[in-house]
Amino acid sequence: MNPDTPLYEGKAKTVFRTENPDELKVIFRNDMTAFNGVKHDLFENKGRFNATASEFFMRLLEKDGVATHFISRPEPDVMIVRRLDMIPLEVIVRNVAAGSMVKKYPVQEGTILNPPVVATDYKDDERGDPMINDDLIIALNILNMAELTSVKKQALRVNEILRAFFDEYGITLVDFKLEFGKSGGEIILGDEISMDSMRLWDKKTGESFDKDVYRFDKGDVMTAYRQVLERIIPKFGE
Amino acid sequence: MNPDTPLYEGKAKTVFRTENPDELKVIFRNDMTAFNGVKHDLFENKGRFNATASEFFMRLLEKDGVATHFISRPEPDVMIVRRLDMIPLEVIVRNVAAGSMVKKYPVQEGTILNPPVVATDYKDDERGDPMINDDLIIALNILNMAELTSVKKQALRVNEILRAFFDEYGITLVDFKLEFGKSGGEIILGDEISMDSMRLWDKKTGESFDKDVYRFDKGDVMTAYRQVLERIIPKFGE
Repeated sequence: MNPDTPLYEGKAKTVFRTENPDELKVIFRNDMTAFNGVKHDLFENKGRFNATASEFFMRLLEKDGVATHFISRPEPDVMIVRRLDMIPLEVIVRNVAAGSMVKKYPVQEGTILNPPVVATDYKDDERGDPMINDDLIIALNILNMAELTSVKKQALRVNEILRAFFDEYGITLVDFKLEFGKSGGEIILGDEISMDSMRLWDKKTGESFDKDVYRFDKGDVMTAYRQVLERIIPKFGE
Repeated sequence: MNPDTPLYEGKAKTVFRTENPDELKVIFRNDMTAFNGVKHDLFENKGRFNATASEFFMRLLEKDGVATHFISRPEPDVMIVRRLDMIPLEVIVRNVAAGSMVKKYPVQEGTILNPPVVATDYKDDERGDPMINDDLIIALNILNMAELTSVKKQALRVNEILRAFFDEYGITLVDFKLEFGKSGGEIILGDEISMDSMRLWDKKTGESFDKDVYRFDKGDVMTAYRQVLERIIPKFGE
């Protein structure tokens, strides 16, 4: 197969094979989409901002013992990652009620969730990524019980690490979405950790620094994304 | 308040106060609805068939140690029940994949689910009864962990009893929906157990004996409901 043929093309990333069968090349594109692809735009720098964030957070997690697919970032918007057998779940961790939780259930936006809430969606665009529970994940053979336990434990560990990190920078980690994959019997964090996949609020002003700026036309989304990177990465953009 | 003013009017049942503050009177109406009320018809005998089934199954469960709200059935379509503080959850137990599970996830109708699957919907017509998971049930203070564990345990116990019962009568208990309430710190089975709330298939022919006959215009729904009662209750209809 032509090595330039994408292995997989998502809404904001394109994945290619590499010469090493255990590694993949991920291009973070400038596409921004929301509402399951109904809203779609292109923003300069978006790909490299999210790749930068993903590298940063995956390195942070690795230091704390969380296995991720990150290997290297040879170009600003390109990441080399470990090839995983992806699990078709979006694992959502929530520290504060917002987004779909507030739309679906009678709970005020901003309500603190302690302990944090873990929820899972079955990743399937055509079905609209329906919510799924533990019993169904097991019944549909998506994961066995030990794997599901491991996924949830890792998701909560990622939450502890990221929440404590953002706390120091005056940002509330409201919620975020993770995707995991398997490799040799191990559950490993894949996909990305970026301003696309997290909901981040300024602790003082409540201002959004994430995709909600785009979703709800709250201002200039790339300014918001850049602000996160400038706050957390010394000398970013200098 | 006028004792004739309903305390609560659902899609197929109306609930009234009684002279005893600990008891309620439930009238099983002849209304049949489907697809969250979009389809609606009246069928003679429907109320008394479902009240008959509910009494029958609740007595069966009580014999096996499951606490239910059933007290008496003074008229064919009227039930006196213990007043409960209802929990706004629909607890669904599935032994075979069918219905919304097949629509939402990639699983073939008829797939055996072993162990059975328990799922919960948040009971709220205006929100379309969205699916809810354990973490959210706790976070929204719908139940505490001990109560949730009790609800699930009781739902699975009900499943064991009903499934074994139907098995003897050549019927597969595909899935069913339960609602629970609280009374003095106890979790008690409320609502109804009827052909409206269960999915029942003839083991030989695969024929439906439940609300699917109405939902999908598979034949005469009251003939189907009557067949269940004739099969399981000696001398029913004589």
